[in-house]
Amino acid sequence: MKSIAITLAVSALLAGTIVAKAQAPSWVPPAENERCPSKWGAGDERGAGNHMKPQTVLNAVKLIKTGEVIELAHVLGPGMPFFGTRRFDMHLKRTFMNTGANERGSNEEMVLSEIGQVGTQFDGFAHQSHRNSHYNCFKTEEITGRGGFTKLGIQNTGAFITRGVLIDVAGFKGVEMLGDNYEITVEDIEGALKKQNTSLQQGDAIMINTGWGRLYGKDNARFVKSCPGIGVKAATWLVAKDPILLGADNWPVEVAPNPDTQISLPVHQIALVVNGVHLLENLKLDELAAKQAYEFAFIMQPLKIQGGTGSTVSPIAVR
Amino acid sequence: MKSIAITLAVSALLAGTIVAKAQAPSWVPPAENERCPSKWGAGDERGAGNHMKPQTVLNAVKLIKTGEVIELAHVLGPGMPFFGTRRFDMHLKRTFMNTGANERGSNEEMVLSEIGQVGTQFDGFAHQSHRNSHYNCFKTEEITGRGGFTKLGIQNTGAFITRGVLIDVAGFKGVEMLGDNYEITVEDIEGALKKQNTSLQQGDAIMINTGWGRLYGKDNARFVKSCPGIGVKAATWLVAKDPILLGADNWPVEVAPNPDTQISLPVHQIALVVNGVHLLENLKLDELAAKQAYEFAFIMQPLKIQGGTGSTVSPIAVR
Amino acid sequence: MKSIAITLAVSALLAGTIVAKAQAPSWVPPAENERCPSKWGAGDERGAGNHMKPQTVLNAVKLIKTGEVIELAHVLGPGMPFFGTRRFDMHLKRTFMNTGANERGSNEEMVLSEIGQVGTQFDGFAHQSHRNSHYNCFKTEEITGRGGFTKLGIQNTGAFITRGVLIDVAGFKGVEMLGDNYEITVEDIEGALKKQNTSLQQGDAIMINTGWGRLYGKDNARFVKSCPGIGVKAATWLVAKDPILLGADNWPVEVAPNPDTQISLPVHQIALVVNGVHLLENLKLDELAAKQAYEFAFIMQPLKIQGGTGSTVSPIAVR
Amino acid sequence: MKSIAITLAVSALLAGTIVAKAQAPSWVPPAENERCPSKWGAGDERGAGNHMKPQTVLNAVKLIKTGEVIELAHVLGPGMPFFGTRRFDMHLKRTFMNTGANERGSNEEMVLSEIGQVGTQFDGFAHQSHRNSHYNCFKTEEITGRGGFTKLGIQNTGAFITRGVLIDVAGFKGVEMLGDNYEITVEDIEGALKKQNTSLQQGDAIMINTGWGRLYGKDNARFVKSCPGIGVKAATWLVAKDPILLGADNWPVEVAPNPDTQISLPVHQIALVVNGVHLLENLKLDELAAKQAYEFAFIMQPLKIQGGTGSTVSPIAVR
Repeated sequence: MKSIAITLAVSALLAGTIVAKAQAPSWVPPAENERCPSKWGAGDERGAGNHMKPQTVLNAVKLIKTGEVIELAHVLGPGMPFFGTRRFDMHLKRTFMNTGANERGSNEEMVLSEIGQVGTQFDGFAHQSHRNSHYNCFKTEEITGRGGFTKLGIQNTGAFITRGVLIDVAGFKGVEMLGDNYEITVEDIEGALKKQNTSLQQGDAIMINTGWGRLYGKDNARFVKSCPGIGVKAATWLVAKDPILLGADNWPVEVAPNPDTQISLPVHQIALVVNGVHLLENLKLDELAAKQAYEFAFIMQPLKIQGGTGSTVSPIAVR
Repeated sequence: MKSIAITLAVSALLAGTIVAKAQAPSWVPPAENERCPSKWGAGDERGAGNHMKPQTVLNAVKLIKTGEVIELAHVLGPGMPFFGTRRFDMHLKRTFMNTGANERGSNEEMVLSEIGQVGTQFDGFAHQSHRNSHYNCFKTEEITGRGGFTKLGIQNTGAFITRGVLIDVAGFKGVEMLGDNYEITVEDIEGALKKQNTSLQQGDAIMINTGWGRLYGKDNARFVKSCPGIGVKAATWLVAKDPILLGADNWPVEVAPNPDTQISLPVHQIALVVNGVHLLENLKLDELAAKQAYEFAFIMQPLKIQGGTGSTVSPIAVR
Repeated sequence: MKSIAITLAVSALLAGTIVAKAQAPSWVPPAENERCPSKWGAGDERGAGNHMKPQTVLNAVKLIKTGEVIELAHVLGPGMPFFGTRRFDMHLKRTFMNTGANERGSNEEMVLSEIGQVGTQFDGFAHQSHRNSHYNCFKTEEITGRGGFTKLGIQNTGAFITRGVLIDVAGFKGVEMLGDNYEITVEDIEGALKKQNTSLQQGDAIMINTGWGRLYGKDNARFVKSCPGIGVKAATWLVAKDPILLGADNWPVEVAPNPDTQISLPVHQIALVVNGVHLLENLKLDELAAKQAYEFAFIMQPLKIQGGTGSTVSPIAVR
Repeated sequence: MKSIAITLAVSALLAGTIVAKAQAPSWVPPAENERCPSKWGAGDERGAGNHMKPQTVLNAVKLIKTGEVIELAHVLGPGMPFFGTRRFDMHLKRTFMNTGANERGSNEEMVLSEIGQVGTQFDGFAHQSHRNSHYNCFKTEEITGRGGFTKLGIQNTGAFITRGVLIDVAGFKGVEMLGDNYEITVEDIEGALKKQNTSLQQGDAIMINTGWGRLYGKDNARFVKSCPGIGVKAATWLVAKDPILLGADNWPVEVAPNPDTQISLPVHQIALVVNGVHLLENLKLDELAAKQAYEFAFIMQPLKIQGGTGSTVSPIAVR
């Protein structure tokens, strides 16, 4: 790994220069000995997913009063926004007419997609690293093969049934949509929770409504160029509540680009690498917000992709 | 469509010849005027999915007593069996090291797959037809575009939360696995239900344990070569119970090849084309059967693939 | 094909309306009985490719004097322009370390692409039709299967070694690049040929330099938005010279959009459907033009894609 | 790279054990200081491709007497044999009917394939390594990105026009096909050349007819299970003749598995890694052999895949 070593050395030098000239970055990941083993134990691959227990299910189910199902996923199709070079292409394999007196025609489709990382989408721990070090200090080169990850794969998570909480920050601020790169503050979250009369509990699936989802499929260029969301401070505050996951109606859960231009999507590392908390992106939260459904049973079934970094999902809120 | 017209004319001639020489096929789909409009109304695209109502959810949730979650999906990976030329290929897009003082590495994967029709998998109504006529007499050429179906797409179904019932036919027959192309009879189903003390209700997700799932990932060649399952009679009997879907631990739900060699997978047409009842294939039912969990809350979230013929899924049983 | 029949009827009505209000389209394809069978005989699939004979090769080889090879293909990579939704994605399948004392590492890549229709690219006769009728009146629905065309596939063409001629229209007009949707006239071609002192011969591979190729990989948005090129008149004039193919340094060989807004890329039909003359797109002609190499041995080897509509190629000029 | 370091240490230990018990492997790659820089100079990426010069072209063209073209490539389609998990899938994107009075229909296809490494196929130097060291000691981790190799990519080679020589070993041995894992000896090659009255020259494209190509598309399982071909000794002898490439009608050019079970496809390293000589696999040589065409102009145009490890090709012999 000589090339990376050189890169790091050079960037350390550059960082030194920057420090001399300007400010240090507002956040960098803690050293491995400060974050490993994780609180879930050495070798653990599930992180906050360990919150999923029978009692968690029972507590969630108690929130179901009317049987109303609210979908939290966008449709997967040609109108989707994409991050970078990702895509979702579907090629129809049109009618194969089977032999037989019953004249049975059969259709299917070939899909080409980063199916773990497009659309409404759930992030696993193989997705992100600090240098080459993932959640619980698994090393990239020790857990990768040609066909996927041998540790931390998304097939390990199982289904989620837990209490879901919507924090409607856009609603709290009295706007349809937060500004293009507005960083949500701890005060915003506390204010929204107070206004909603909602408290957070261990193991919650926490979803933040920024209103940014209004652009999804309508102004995709703007949707992916930047977005409002939580930053280092709010993420740190939320992670301290010990949730099972953090979600939002924007593409990276967090504010992007980060107001501190020296760092790149730090909440991805705070959640996935340092604390083992999953992320859930590109949620469709407009219906929840409109109905002021702040507390509900949250249900999600990731595809069991062996060695996958994540999964496109179709989660629901039930109440 | 001259070529198909010719094909049909020829096959009609051949059928005529066969009738003269031998027996008529044991089943062919009814004429369009006998099956359309469907009982759910002209233009309906959801079929038995219309059973999904708030009360259905509440009834299902009542079955959750302990919070135990039992997974019904196999892992998606290189060890899977495939029908025909289908596949699931995953290509790791290994670490992209982002710029930034937080040294964030990012991994993802490109998946190439008939993601609607591989693994544990849910069939929609665009998947099958009688000649060119689908559920509710939608015509293939009127509802297909380059990128998928414009009607009957799987994005319409929404999530399923309903009462699930396991019919353990292998258990009833006292075998680990039914024979390689054993056709399950109505008597088998009635006997198993009686033994289990289970009754069927409108809107149930009905799953049949043949034991064939034991071969999944272990002897894939045998798994896909044939399988035990329901035939025309048992399917007709089950469909009359008005279920939301029919599932099994084999690859086509039904017996294959059909004992009547003149017809090809007729249960696909009975369920999907004629009656608008969904199919759920390649289920992992061993745990349910071992635990004698015959009644449970069934939860499934198909991917919202626009115009898709089906969806790979990760359903669960909760009790 | 009811839906298409309706579409045609409606468009005929609309056309009628347009005629009443405005002008008829400047060109529509001739009726089938005027163009079929082709001059190469009923059932012929090779069209102008029939010009390839041993004597054609010998004539071309005589033009090789210095052994200089000039490449006419652009590199296939992330900087390419694309028409519509086409793409060229390459996913590295990084080192598989084989067992063995010789410690052999192996790399390969998965490519996802309309490999017949991206980059420097050669069009076959399955690519285009008038309604459902291709070259020599092969019908789309009679020659298509799930996996490609059963007639007119690109695997039939074989390699091309013939006299190549560059017609440098940009050079004749004294510009680096023709205007964004300039239609090259017959006079332009005659003028350029006279200036170059070049005459056309039966079986030539004719390539037109518009200068538009300067934008390839540099301003891809502009490159594909429109382009200068030949229109109906110049194409008709060129096709009458009986060439083996027509090529250019733009994306459709012809001017786009056509100045007659009622018709869409008519030269595609004039060449591929009506006359069986191949097209060669996205050529890199800058070096030829700079060296004033107007006559040379043209060599091209399409991939032998069974049932393919075309092939990405790497043709060369040798002199 | 700790995991690989461990692997190597362990394999060194195992090798030690094997030496104590049995024989040393018959060949391992030379140390880097014995093979780098290559004879073409430090930093060179073209290897034997440097033989391509104008005089090479002129010499080849002199061999063209009749203009006869003999194709050396198999068709790319569903009947192809594949090595390992490689594939060639084509999905027809059926008719898009463009708007316009000229009613222009357009078809294309999506291809999913290791297009550099399937069918009749040309190997570049990024394809193979000794540990992490390629031709001219380029290191894998220093020349790989997500989207391909930054050095040694196949786009660098350009077209090949050179003298081609067929060595018909099957013909020399008087058999239609050599045995399933017959290792061709130096004596076989010398004998065949003498019988043919052919001599080798610097820069030749050398192709060996084993007869194994008869199985291509007919008994694919046997075709890829093993094959006759050259081994370490014959490869060393041939490489000393300084050819531009070595090809054969089998899948790896060389005998497989190697008779020395301790080593894996050593000729790949001898040619590609140590000597910078290209390999050309899965050639169709039956017509050349039947016509006793032992000397000819060899022409090949690899696709210009940026950073690719190789290219599927359609080479020809012209005489």
